Amino acid sequence: MNKAEDNAYAQQGEVGLVEYQDFVHPEPFTFEMGGSIEQFTLRYETYGRLNAHKDNAILICHALSGDHHCAGVHSLKDRKPGWWNHIIGPGKPIDTTQFFVICSNCIGGCQGSSGPSSINPATGQPYKLKFPLVTIGDMVRAQRQLIAHLGIDRLYCVLGGSMGGMQALQWAIEYPDCVERVLGLATTARQNAQAIAFNEVGRAAITQDPAWQGGAYEVGKGPDVGLSVARMMAHITYFSDKGMDEKFGRNRREGKQTVQQFDVEFEVESYLRYQGRAFVNRFDANTYLYFTKALDRFDLYGDSGCLEDAFAKVNARVLVIGFTTDWLFPPQQNREIVHALLRCGKHATYAELGMDLGHDSFLVESPELYELVHAFIGPKS
Amino acid sequence: MNKAEDNAYAQQGEVGLVEYQDFVHPEPFTFEMGGSIEQFTLRYETYGRLNAHKDNAILICHALSGDHHCAGVHSLKDRKPGWWNHIIGPGKPIDTTQFFVICSNCIGGCQGSSGPSSINPATGQPYKLKFPLVTIGDMVRAQRQLIAHLGIDRLYCVLGGSMGGMQALQWAIEYPDCVERVLGLATTARQNAQAIAFNEVGRAAITQDPAWQGGAYEVGKGPDVGLSVARMMAHITYFSDKGMDEKFGRNRREGKQTVQQFDVEFEVESYLRYQGRAFVNRFDANTYLYFTKALDRFDLYGDSGCLEDAFAKVNARVLVIGFTTDWLFPPQQNREIVHALLRCGKHATYAELGMDLGHDSFLVESPELYELVHAFIGPKS
Repeated sequence: MNKAEDNAYAQQGEVGLVEYQDFVHPEPFTFEMGGSIEQFTLRYETYGRLNAHKDNAILICHALSGDHHCAGVHSLKDRKPGWWNHIIGPGKPIDTTQFFVICSNCIGGCQGSSGPSSINPATGQPYKLKFPLVTIGDMVRAQRQLIAHLGIDRLYCVLGGSMGGMQALQWAIEYPDCVERVLGLATTARQNAQAIAFNEVGRAAITQDPAWQGGAYEVGKGPDVGLSVARMMAHITYFSDKGMDEKFGRNRREGKQTVQQFDVEFEVESYLRYQGRAFVNRFDANTYLYFTKALDRFDLYGDSGCLEDAFAKVNARVLVIGFTTDWLFPPQQNREIVHALLRCGKHATYAELGMDLGHDSFLVESPELYELVHAFIGPKS
Repeated sequence: MNKAEDNAYAQQGEVGLVEYQDFVHPEPFTFEMGGSIEQFTLRYETYGRLNAHKDNAILICHALSGDHHCAGVHSLKDRKPGWWNHIIGPGKPIDTTQFFVICSNCIGGCQGSSGPSSINPATGQPYKLKFPLVTIGDMVRAQRQLIAHLGIDRLYCVLGGSMGGMQALQWAIEYPDCVERVLGLATTARQNAQAIAFNEVGRAAITQDPAWQGGAYEVGKGPDVGLSVARMMAHITYFSDKGMDEKFGRNRREGKQTVQQFDVEFEVESYLRYQGRAFVNRFDANTYLYFTKALDRFDLYGDSGCLEDAFAKVNARVLVIGFTTDWLFPPQQNREIVHALLRCGKHATYAELGMDLGHDSFLVESPELYELVHAFIGPKS
C-alpha cells in the first residue's frame, strides 16, 4: 500500500489494506508442560506506526477461535474486515494514528503460527500431536520474542477478551516491567468446572470422530463432524439466553413449511449449523484441542488457591470488563480478578456492561465499550 | 410378590419388588403431526392399590431420559431403585399406602413402549424413522388410553419434572375434567431458543455420526459416539455452575499424575465421559431425536403468543416448583406458568427452591421438596 492509499484509508477512519508478516524465531522454544521445538513462527499484523521512543505499542491477544487478523482487510474483495476492526483504526478507541498495534496468531494456532498443523522444519512433515502441549504462558512467552524482535521493550497496553484476557493477565504477571496497562474483557483467572466440562464435550466430539485418526488426519480430511459439533455447542456458550431469545426466539426457518423429521426447523438451528460448517473451513481440529486444553489448565489461583500470590509482582494498571449476560466467564469471575489485585495494593478497576449478547459481548459494536476502552488507553501523550 | 413380602417392604417404607406391565392398545393411534400406527404399547408400573372409588390414582410423567421405572426394584440384585424411589413409597411424600401410583414409558420411547426401536406388528420390523413424529400431546393422549384401561376416569394428581412437567400441564389442558391436581417441576410452557439450540447440537452429533445411517442402524450398532456426546453436553445443562464447582471444582483425577495429551485429566471430564457411556447402554438414539423434537415443538403460547388461551379450560389445582439454579428451564419460565393461570382465575401456586443442583434438582433428595410435594398432594381423605 502506498502512502496516498494509506492516507485515504486514514481519512475514512479505517485501517484499510493490511498484510500479515511471519516472525521466525530461529532458536529452540521449550514449552511449560514439557517438550520443545527447534524454532517457531508467529504470524502477525501491525497497524499504525511505532514511534521513535518505541513506547506506543499495543498488543492485542486473540480468543480461542480468533487470529492475528484483527483489523483492516487483506483484499478490497474481503467481505469482512478483521475481527476487532470496529475498535481499531484512525480515530477509533484503539487509535492507530497514535498507537502501533500488534496482533499475532498464538503459538499452537492454525493461521500461520507454529502449531500442530504446521510443518516441522526438522522433518518436513506437520507436527500433528507431536507438537508439545501449549499453555497460556507459552503463548505469552512466544509473543515476548515477537515484541523483542520488533525492538519493543515495554508495551503501552496488552489487551484481549476471553482467552485473550488470560494472556493479557499472564503478561502482567510474567513481564511486570514490560507492560504499562492490561485490559481484560470477559475473562477469568481460572476455568471453572462448567467451562472445563463444555470444552471436554467439544474434545470428545473431535477425538471420537473416526476422521480424527488419533490426530494424524490429512489436511482437508479432518474430523469435520466433531469439530462442527464442538463449535455449535461452544457458540451457545458465547451467547446468552436473552440474546438468543431476542435474535431467534422460536422463529421457524422461512420457506420451510413442511418439516422432514430431523431437518433444521427453527432459525436458531440453522444459525448454529452454519456456524459449525463455517468453522470447519477455517480452523484446525487439533489446534482446537490444544487451545481448549490451554484454557482448561489456566489457573492463576495455583496450588495455593490464592490469586494474590500470582499478582504480587504486577506493575501494570489493570482494567477488567465483565458483561452481565456472560455465563461462560460470568461477571463474578471478572470482578474477582480486580478484587485480588486491589487486595495486593495494585492499580485495578472493574467495569461491568449490561449487554445482552453474553460472552461474545466484547466482540460487538458498543459505544459504552468504546468509551471504556478509549478512556483506559487514552490518547498517547 | 406375595402379601407377606409386600407387607415387609411396606414396613421398611419401601415400594420393594415391582414388575412392569405392558398395555397394548389394539386400535390405530393417529399422531398430532401426522401419521398413525395400527396399535401401540405402553410399558408401565404401578405402586400401591387403586381404591374402590378409583379416585386415588396419581400419574407420574418422566423426563427426556427417564422411563416407567420410577420406584422399587426389579430384582433384589438391582444396584439402584427407580429414578424417583426416594419420593414414592409407604409413608413417603407420594404415599403408596394411600395412593395408586402409575408411571408409563412415553410413546416414542425405548424402554418397552412403542417407539422407533420397537417392532411394527404390521411388518415384524422395527419402525425406525417410519415411526411418526411425537409431541407432548401424543404422549398424554396415549397415557389417557392407559388410564382408561385401568378403569380410572379421573386422576388425583399428574406430576413430573422437565418434560414430565410439560406432560402434566398438557393433561390439565387436554383433559380438564380428568385431573384434580397438576404438579410441574423445573418445567416450561415452551422451549426457548437456547434450549432448542442445545437439543439441536445433540441431534447434530447423532445424525452426523456415520453409524446413525439415516436412523436405520441395527440394535447394538447405533451412533454411540453421537449419542454419548449429546448426553455429555445435555448433562451440563442439567447441572449448575455452582453445583459443578462444589462437586468437582478443578479437581484432578486421582492416580493420573502424568497426562497423555487429550486423556481425561479433570474429575468433571471423567464424570461426563462416564455419563455419556452409560447412557448409550440404556437409551436409543432415535428416541433421543424424537423426544428432543417433542420438547422443542412444545409451545403452550401457541400462535396467539398468549398462555392464557391455552389455560382457559384448566380445572386442576396447579403447583409449579422452580429451582433457583436451573438455567435450562429457569425459575422465570416456571413462574410465568403460574402467573398466566392466575390471570385466568385458576387455582395455581408457584414455589421456588434454592437448591444448587440446577435443572436436575427435582430428582434429588430434599426435605424441602418433600414437604412441598406432600403438602400439595396431601393425605387422601
